[in-house]
Amino acid sequence: MKAIVMTGAGEPWQVHELPIPTIEPGQVLVKVLASGMCYTDVWATEGYGGDIYPQTPGHEVVGEIVDVGAGVHGRQVGDRVGTTWVQQACGRCDYCLQNRPLSGQTAMNCVSPRTTGFAAQGGHAEYVAVAAEGTVLLPDGLDYVDAAPMMCAGYTTWSGLRDAALRPRERIAILGIGGLGHVALQLAHATGFETIAITHSPDKRDLARGLGADHVVANGTELRDLGGADVLLVTTNSFDAVEGTLVGLRPNGRVVVSGLDFTRPFSIPSDGVPFHMMRHSVIGSTHGGLDKLSEVLALAGTGAVKPITEQFGLDDAAEAYDRLKSGKLRFRGVFTPAVR
Amino acid sequence: MKAIVMTGAGEPWQVHELPIPTIEPGQVLVKVLASGMCYTDVWATEGYGGDIYPQTPGHEVVGEIVDVGAGVHGRQVGDRVGTTWVQQACGRCDYCLQNRPLSGQTAMNCVSPRTTGFAAQGGHAEYVAVAAEGTVLLPDGLDYVDAAPMMCAGYTTWSGLRDAALRPRERIAILGIGGLGHVALQLAHATGFETIAITHSPDKRDLARGLGADHVVANGTELRDLGGADVLLVTTNSFDAVEGTLVGLRPNGRVVVSGLDFTRPFSIPSDGVPFHMMRHSVIGSTHGGLDKLSEVLALAGTGAVKPITEQFGLDDAAEAYDRLKSGKLRFRGVFTPAVR
Amino acid sequence: MKAIVMTGAGEPWQVHELPIPTIEPGQVLVKVLASGMCYTDVWATEGYGGDIYPQTPGHEVVGEIVDVGAGVHGRQVGDRVGTTWVQQACGRCDYCLQNRPLSGQTAMNCVSPRTTGFAAQGGHAEYVAVAAEGTVLLPDGLDYVDAAPMMCAGYTTWSGLRDAALRPRERIAILGIGGLGHVALQLAHATGFETIAITHSPDKRDLARGLGADHVVANGTELRDLGGADVLLVTTNSFDAVEGTLVGLRPNGRVVVSGLDFTRPFSIPSDGVPFHMMRHSVIGSTHGGLDKLSEVLALAGTGAVKPITEQFGLDDAAEAYDRLKSGKLRFRGVFTPAVR
Amino acid sequence: MKAIVMTGAGEPWQVHELPIPTIEPGQVLVKVLASGMCYTDVWATEGYGGDIYPQTPGHEVVGEIVDVGAGVHGRQVGDRVGTTWVQQACGRCDYCLQNRPLSGQTAMNCVSPRTTGFAAQGGHAEYVAVAAEGTVLLPDGLDYVDAAPMMCAGYTTWSGLRDAALRPRERIAILGIGGLGHVALQLAHATGFETIAITHSPDKRDLARGLGADHVVANGTELRDLGGADVLLVTTNSFDAVEGTLVGLRPNGRVVVSGLDFTRPFSIPSDGVPFHMMRHSVIGSTHGGLDKLSEVLALAGTGAVKPITEQFGLDDAAEAYDRLKSGKLRFRGVFTPAVR
Repeated sequence: MKAIVMTGAGEPWQVHELPIPTIEPGQVLVKVLASGMCYTDVWATEGYGGDIYPQTPGHEVVGEIVDVGAGVHGRQVGDRVGTTWVQQACGRCDYCLQNRPLSGQTAMNCVSPRTTGFAAQGGHAEYVAVAAEGTVLLPDGLDYVDAAPMMCAGYTTWSGLRDAALRPRERIAILGIGGLGHVALQLAHATGFETIAITHSPDKRDLARGLGADHVVANGTELRDLGGADVLLVTTNSFDAVEGTLVGLRPNGRVVVSGLDFTRPFSIPSDGVPFHMMRHSVIGSTHGGLDKLSEVLALAGTGAVKPITEQFGLDDAAEAYDRLKSGKLRFRGVFTPAVR
Repeated sequence: MKAIVMTGAGEPWQVHELPIPTIEPGQVLVKVLASGMCYTDVWATEGYGGDIYPQTPGHEVVGEIVDVGAGVHGRQVGDRVGTTWVQQACGRCDYCLQNRPLSGQTAMNCVSPRTTGFAAQGGHAEYVAVAAEGTVLLPDGLDYVDAAPMMCAGYTTWSGLRDAALRPRERIAILGIGGLGHVALQLAHATGFETIAITHSPDKRDLARGLGADHVVANGTELRDLGGADVLLVTTNSFDAVEGTLVGLRPNGRVVVSGLDFTRPFSIPSDGVPFHMMRHSVIGSTHGGLDKLSEVLALAGTGAVKPITEQFGLDDAAEAYDRLKSGKLRFRGVFTPAVR
Repeated sequence: MKAIVMTGAGEPWQVHELPIPTIEPGQVLVKVLASGMCYTDVWATEGYGGDIYPQTPGHEVVGEIVDVGAGVHGRQVGDRVGTTWVQQACGRCDYCLQNRPLSGQTAMNCVSPRTTGFAAQGGHAEYVAVAAEGTVLLPDGLDYVDAAPMMCAGYTTWSGLRDAALRPRERIAILGIGGLGHVALQLAHATGFETIAITHSPDKRDLARGLGADHVVANGTELRDLGGADVLLVTTNSFDAVEGTLVGLRPNGRVVVSGLDFTRPFSIPSDGVPFHMMRHSVIGSTHGGLDKLSEVLALAGTGAVKPITEQFGLDDAAEAYDRLKSGKLRFRGVFTPAVR
Repeated sequence: MKAIVMTGAGEPWQVHELPIPTIEPGQVLVKVLASGMCYTDVWATEGYGGDIYPQTPGHEVVGEIVDVGAGVHGRQVGDRVGTTWVQQACGRCDYCLQNRPLSGQTAMNCVSPRTTGFAAQGGHAEYVAVAAEGTVLLPDGLDYVDAAPMMCAGYTTWSGLRDAALRPRERIAILGIGGLGHVALQLAHATGFETIAITHSPDKRDLARGLGADHVVANGTELRDLGGADVLLVTTNSFDAVEGTLVGLRPNGRVVVSGLDFTRPFSIPSDGVPFHMMRHSVIGSTHGGLDKLSEVLALAGTGAVKPITEQFGLDDAAEAYDRLKSGKLRFRGVFTPAVR
């Protein structure tokens, strides 16, 4: 089969011809029909995820099951599935003993998880073998290309919104209208919240409104002048940008941080009305329980959220990577290996 | 191996010699070291669970893994494990599509679950084959006999307490000081709550105090006179008894119902201060996510809760069943098949 | 001033000429501009609220402050206000010692509350004196006639929805599309939930759709066939009707009961899949903290919810009462005393 | 009457003879029987609270009501009361319109609150006039000296624990065993949690154990080696110290910050396992709803928490302030004006 391969830290993606993976008991073989690109792919390529090479990246994988290993329960050939980043946890570490790994991605704190595109082969390939327990069934009628970005961009932002313990009609500001942000905006809008897009790109203002933004502002000052937000969902990796918006957070406001800025810590200012007197919270969030993934897939299945994608063949690896790394993708890149 | 068998609705338990079960991929073979009896065993025997015969009852099973099937991940020979009532869900029904089955016992609403002692062989035997994903590792040092009742009596009552969304220092009344109640009382006490045992048995008053009851009352009127309770955890199957205690429920009080009275519906009285103006809730509860089971096992592992048990060999099936059905057990009966 | 007076249990409403109330320290005098009718007015009239006669009914009162007593803080002449049912709690009973009375209507469990239209004069009059602390400021631009029903119909149903701890995109069924139900439906729709109206009146089907119902069904069986609901908000006083719909409640479903059927208790059936295994809850709910009232007023201020009303002068007391009691009002009756 | 007065920013406390305050409608006159010192008194004295001079500091005030103004409801002469920091909110600002001010201290975000010891006279005096709505009744039998520190040290830390949304048997680490910390430790222990005191003072180790610490560690590394904590309650103003302990926070851990380090922002490190992947939260917390104050007073009333105090007469102002500012108080200073 054809597969994109990271051969070493900082090395360009290569397209290799590899054997179709052999499935072990408990696994299924998935014919990949769409595989989304996430900025984490860049980190994996640059070495932030450790020496995982050679490895095929890609953890927004959807496709059709074409083979089923021994001991697989609940999945069968022909199933339309997606696979999660953490397919499987060890089941034995201190964290797993709390039995949260069985809730899926919350296994992220397992000491030795099987991660798609990191510890195990990822989805930028024609086939991938994954643990059956790390798959979810896709809703009927949801296109593969629309489903793939739900596996991380949708899952991450929906988990973030859910972790914010939203009250009805709260105001949700989305910081950054890119791969994650344009999905988050639709999700917040589809679930009845008042939404504010924060973007410094004038050309994204109309787009944001079309995706469901009730308001668009450029920065924290404008956000404050608009009356502020109850929740600030961060979909950028620039902590500078985040801290500049905190001035627009209402009392009891929550900042949901789902990403990382490797260049600096996250700082909560000590000037102005103190953080604790505003009862602000900073909530670290990532893929939550699998029920969160089911929820976002159900929303996608009804058409409430539809990612804007650029599609690539596996042979377009170099161009795709370049657009991903440079932030030019509008808004999510998806490989469609089956389309040659 | 030796196993207790229900041969038909209403038939007495028989002790049979059967082949040791063969494990399928994804399963483990458990040498049973303790298997608790639950009143549900009576219902299974009398036919309330449908025509499941012949079948071996018992869903409070703990033991040692002696064989591991293909595709098993996270379990190995020598592991000390317990198994849950719902070992496995179908993964495909409307309920499973919400991806809650992976949280374990919440799979109870799956349309075709594999249930220990009902759909599949139970634990009142020398060996049992169970789905690996339906097992939990036991804490080091916890005796098997003390662990077995945690798998249902502990799991049920702890889930009930957790479902009540307890606030610190609330007053928790436990209705019925039997198999479930004497465990619930210890759990509530160990986690810092003020506890009230409700029992009409004078001989259980001192016992209840010894198990952590701050107060003991005989009925709802006495409960009310004591200042009432915030939570009423029901561990009896008599709805008559429950309704008689509602008068002792404080504003915002919650009644947690984990059992069933087949003889009548549960009625909320319409006299007195209305239910809705008291903001009372009636919460139906059963085994929650596997994290709840992990929590109660961890509590048992520290000695914070220890069931009072009567132990039986498998050959004592008739006597054990008689004591279970007649309510004479003090307080949990446990088979210890390995002790001959 | 003109005022409607209940002169004794079961006596018809009379229109009296009374002195304008004298305000005490801590109170404000409100010129009533709209006063909604609630079915509780019937109960007050028929004696279910005790011997409160002579008394002016009406607890959905809005108007303008025309005088302010000594010690009043935060309210001034000219303020557009509404007043709550429980204006004031005693501050000293066991319940008040928990300091929940300061959260407003949750003072309902105070042993001697000052209740509008029961312990104190109600709003079906030209003026009313109320405790300043029991008033809320109305949003600018919200018509008095649209505001009045928010003070109980809106407050009750919104509290009910909030007490149900809604998760995004859950399905909410509203049982009964009358005075409360037609408001509840709009609230659920405006906050992004999928809504189902349950009504046996064919002529209300289109109306319900117009108010935001995604689906309309006639009963529990139809509800179940539609896939069921996560929340059943009860806005009828017929417990027969409620129990008939329970079959359509999904696993983890919540029934919110905000009213009372004096004729019978509320029964949870013991046939079918048991209540506790479905993890169903029955939640008694009434006016919650004042923040809930603020929230529903804010929603009304944006036009997200607008009651359908019939307006009456105080002289129309007899006709208004007749239509209220007979259930003919479509959907909320409001007195507008200032319009002669 | 005798009163301590701050005469200007940075000026030493002076003892003045002043007229007994005149109460306005809605207020009560309290004979001060104990008035606790909080480090915020230092900030008020040094000018961080703005130009509030001349003013009497002290916001941990308890005493007996000796006079009642017009329009006061629910309080009477002879009542044993405490008063809150924010006695009263404006009732009209954007924040107040949400009707949270009526929940008491959550009025802290009102734009013009009446704050004890800042905007209005504080408690380091023989008498103080306070808004009746800003008072709470003290439990019978609770000594005034033990009650005073509950009004801020107890209220703050209990609000922090409650804001952490504790699950039963979680591990709570208290950072800093001083005025707040020694109270927090007792509160966490009394409510059934496993507690860890973090202190670098060897002489406080035994003391911490005596107050209910299950473990004592010196820093974050030791905390981590002990297995970590689920909640880190910060009772120090040194953010350096806080950040050094984050390494000991378990997955899903919460850091509760109730204070402020004026010298620097709060930084969440970006090295190690990222904050968001650990699902950590930083929760800003301060005095919560009045129900939280009632809860902590009830705990104090049962003896579950008892502050360790140093008592002073008003004439000891200079010495008391010196011990407060230098951090020498063990652990809470309380003026007892009635004892001459």
